Amino acid sequence: MENSVGIVKTKYYTIEENIKLESGVEFAPTTVAYETYGKLNEDKNNAILVIHALTGDAHAAGYRNENDKKPGWWDVLIGPNKAFDTNKYFVICTNIFGGCSGTTGPSSINPKTGEPYGITFPVFTIEDTVLVQKKLLDYFGIKELYCVAGGSMGGMEAMQFAISYPDFVKSTILIATTSRLSPQAIAFNAVGRNSIISDPAWNNGNYYNQETKPDRGLSNARMIGHITYLCEEAMYNKFGRKLQDKDHYDFNFDIDFQVESYLQHQGQIFIDRFDANSYLYITKAVDYFDLEDKYGSLENAFSKSKSKYLIISFDSDWLFPTSQAKEIVNTLMKLDKDVSFCEIQSPCGHDAFLLEYEVQEKIIKSFLDNHIKGEINE
Amino acid sequence: MENSVGIVKTKYYTIEENIKLESGVEFAPTTVAYETYGKLNEDKNNAILVIHALTGDAHAAGYRNENDKKPGWWDVLIGPNKAFDTNKYFVICTNIFGGCSGTTGPSSINPKTGEPYGITFPVFTIEDTVLVQKKLLDYFGIKELYCVAGGSMGGMEAMQFAISYPDFVKSTILIATTSRLSPQAIAFNAVGRNSIISDPAWNNGNYYNQETKPDRGLSNARMIGHITYLCEEAMYNKFGRKLQDKDHYDFNFDIDFQVESYLQHQGQIFIDRFDANSYLYITKAVDYFDLEDKYGSLENAFSKSKSKYLIISFDSDWLFPTSQAKEIVNTLMKLDKDVSFCEIQSPCGHDAFLLEYEVQEKIIKSFLDNHIKGEINE
Repeated sequence: MENSVGIVKTKYYTIEENIKLESGVEFAPTTVAYETYGKLNEDKNNAILVIHALTGDAHAAGYRNENDKKPGWWDVLIGPNKAFDTNKYFVICTNIFGGCSGTTGPSSINPKTGEPYGITFPVFTIEDTVLVQKKLLDYFGIKELYCVAGGSMGGMEAMQFAISYPDFVKSTILIATTSRLSPQAIAFNAVGRNSIISDPAWNNGNYYNQETKPDRGLSNARMIGHITYLCEEAMYNKFGRKLQDKDHYDFNFDIDFQVESYLQHQGQIFIDRFDANSYLYITKAVDYFDLEDKYGSLENAFSKSKSKYLIISFDSDWLFPTSQAKEIVNTLMKLDKDVSFCEIQSPCGHDAFLLEYEVQEKIIKSFLDNHIKGEINE
Repeated sequence: MENSVGIVKTKYYTIEENIKLESGVEFAPTTVAYETYGKLNEDKNNAILVIHALTGDAHAAGYRNENDKKPGWWDVLIGPNKAFDTNKYFVICTNIFGGCSGTTGPSSINPKTGEPYGITFPVFTIEDTVLVQKKLLDYFGIKELYCVAGGSMGGMEAMQFAISYPDFVKSTILIATTSRLSPQAIAFNAVGRNSIISDPAWNNGNYYNQETKPDRGLSNARMIGHITYLCEEAMYNKFGRKLQDKDHYDFNFDIDFQVESYLQHQGQIFIDRFDANSYLYITKAVDYFDLEDKYGSLENAFSKSKSKYLIISFDSDWLFPTSQAKEIVNTLMKLDKDVSFCEIQSPCGHDAFLLEYEVQEKIIKSFLDNHIKGEINE
């Protein structure tokens, strides 16, 4: 556990008051699952909010217990002397609103009925998820956020955070993300959702007390997702056309190819840790995210932001390609904002943001420690 | 009906003897659904075999009756004075072995049991489908094939035809096709099949006498397929992020975006015309197709072929990209075969092979009439 934040515990904060969602719906109460690493300084200006991707959770760093072999999802970047240096910064990570890892979502019990919300849970947006995180920061008494950082969907939230709270955010790190999904990316999400909804076990979202859950639909949705997280080159490198545990075709409908086996496995392990309704809600929020449409233009969206920006993309990412990152970069440059941009060469596709750590570590560390340095008391 | 072959009827030919499949299984009887356009000449050397793509049928040209508004799938290219000029050539098209539009497949009645084959139907390969077509040509007494032509999966079959019968095939037209699927393309097929198999109504392939068929799984598989037939640019041009029949998000799980509506529609109309088991078998045959693996190398595969080749690819096709077409072209050039190659610029993705007719018409007509001309008596 060298350079590790050590053993950590997920904590919970409940927002009792109504939250007004973008849809107009008012919602309460909202419990937020979160973890923190490092110490909040006296000036309360060394906090960094890191935000997970589509199916992540609040457990971003450290271990759950002494026998835990698998650290949090961004452990390589969060810890003493790491990119998000917990000797200097107070790092916070929450589970997304509508999720299924501690924060209130469709699988949570509605206190008014005593039953899980299911699809009576309100459809929400990325802006709503950001609002919930802001309430937690308020609870900590944080007056200024040193940085908000996220990859993929987490990047959308980080972007929205910088836009929603222009005076609050000092710096923003956006990794492998976009200001709006392409129609192709919407299409993949739509087919994934269709896969869940068309599973009879989904039962209009009321499956929590059933024996059978919409595992098949959810697993299939995850398989579709994983195709988009890899790229052609990554698939060639990882699998090629290699067969799984056999030398010849089986001439039946069992798994023949390694790539099939990989996807099946990803689908299978996913159903143990994720809720099908949460998948519906969160992908919908991602589809709805569209800064151009919401603010009239990307320039309007970012015009009031006072944040410095670090933007990272990956050349083989075809889900959120570099061209989309560059749209944000060009907009920020036009607006004369402080923006650094780096396209990392990688053969890993969209997954690269969780794999290509070495170069990200250097870039992020330098951005946080040097580019914005001297402005906090450690 | 100008330049049309007019009203046509699908005919049926039954191969009574056993067909030995690549798996080793012997299968009989096999009924082949086919259509012909034009007249076979006395020398029986003006026949052209056109082969349909994944979900096509034998109805390649003309109309089914006087009120029929929708001609066959390649009608723009087949007819008097068209690319496949029925004044000169005798054009034949069959439904694929294992299909569901007249040729024996899993939905056909097994004469030994009086029940549909279901998944007792043998798993077959592209080579098997070609063998069945060759039997039909033998029945016509055709001694030499003027041309074999196909797009996408039809191109795989055409390629295999030229390789399986090197002395029989004079020319081969391969459009938007590949000598083997990429792992990504296998992945899409695998998820499509998984979608069908995980539909409880699939019932291990025994659904023909059920009230409910695996329509949801099949529809979902088709939606996945359609994402790969379009490209990013085509999706932007066709749909962008435009909403379907609304100005604002609905904040529910109904269809919001036009691209969702398009895919849902494609899925819905597909279940009326296609059999889920056939989809499993045919995509498996496509996954299995691998000339490099089968013959040791692409050079070995084509070494005995005496055919002239016309190869067409589309620059925006990411399912079977130009790079894969070029592998075939380069192999044929290395082998000193007669090969013409054209990459057509198109914003339509893989679908381009069924849309970009004007330029294909010219290229194919010139290839057939000029490049191989003077060798048949009209």
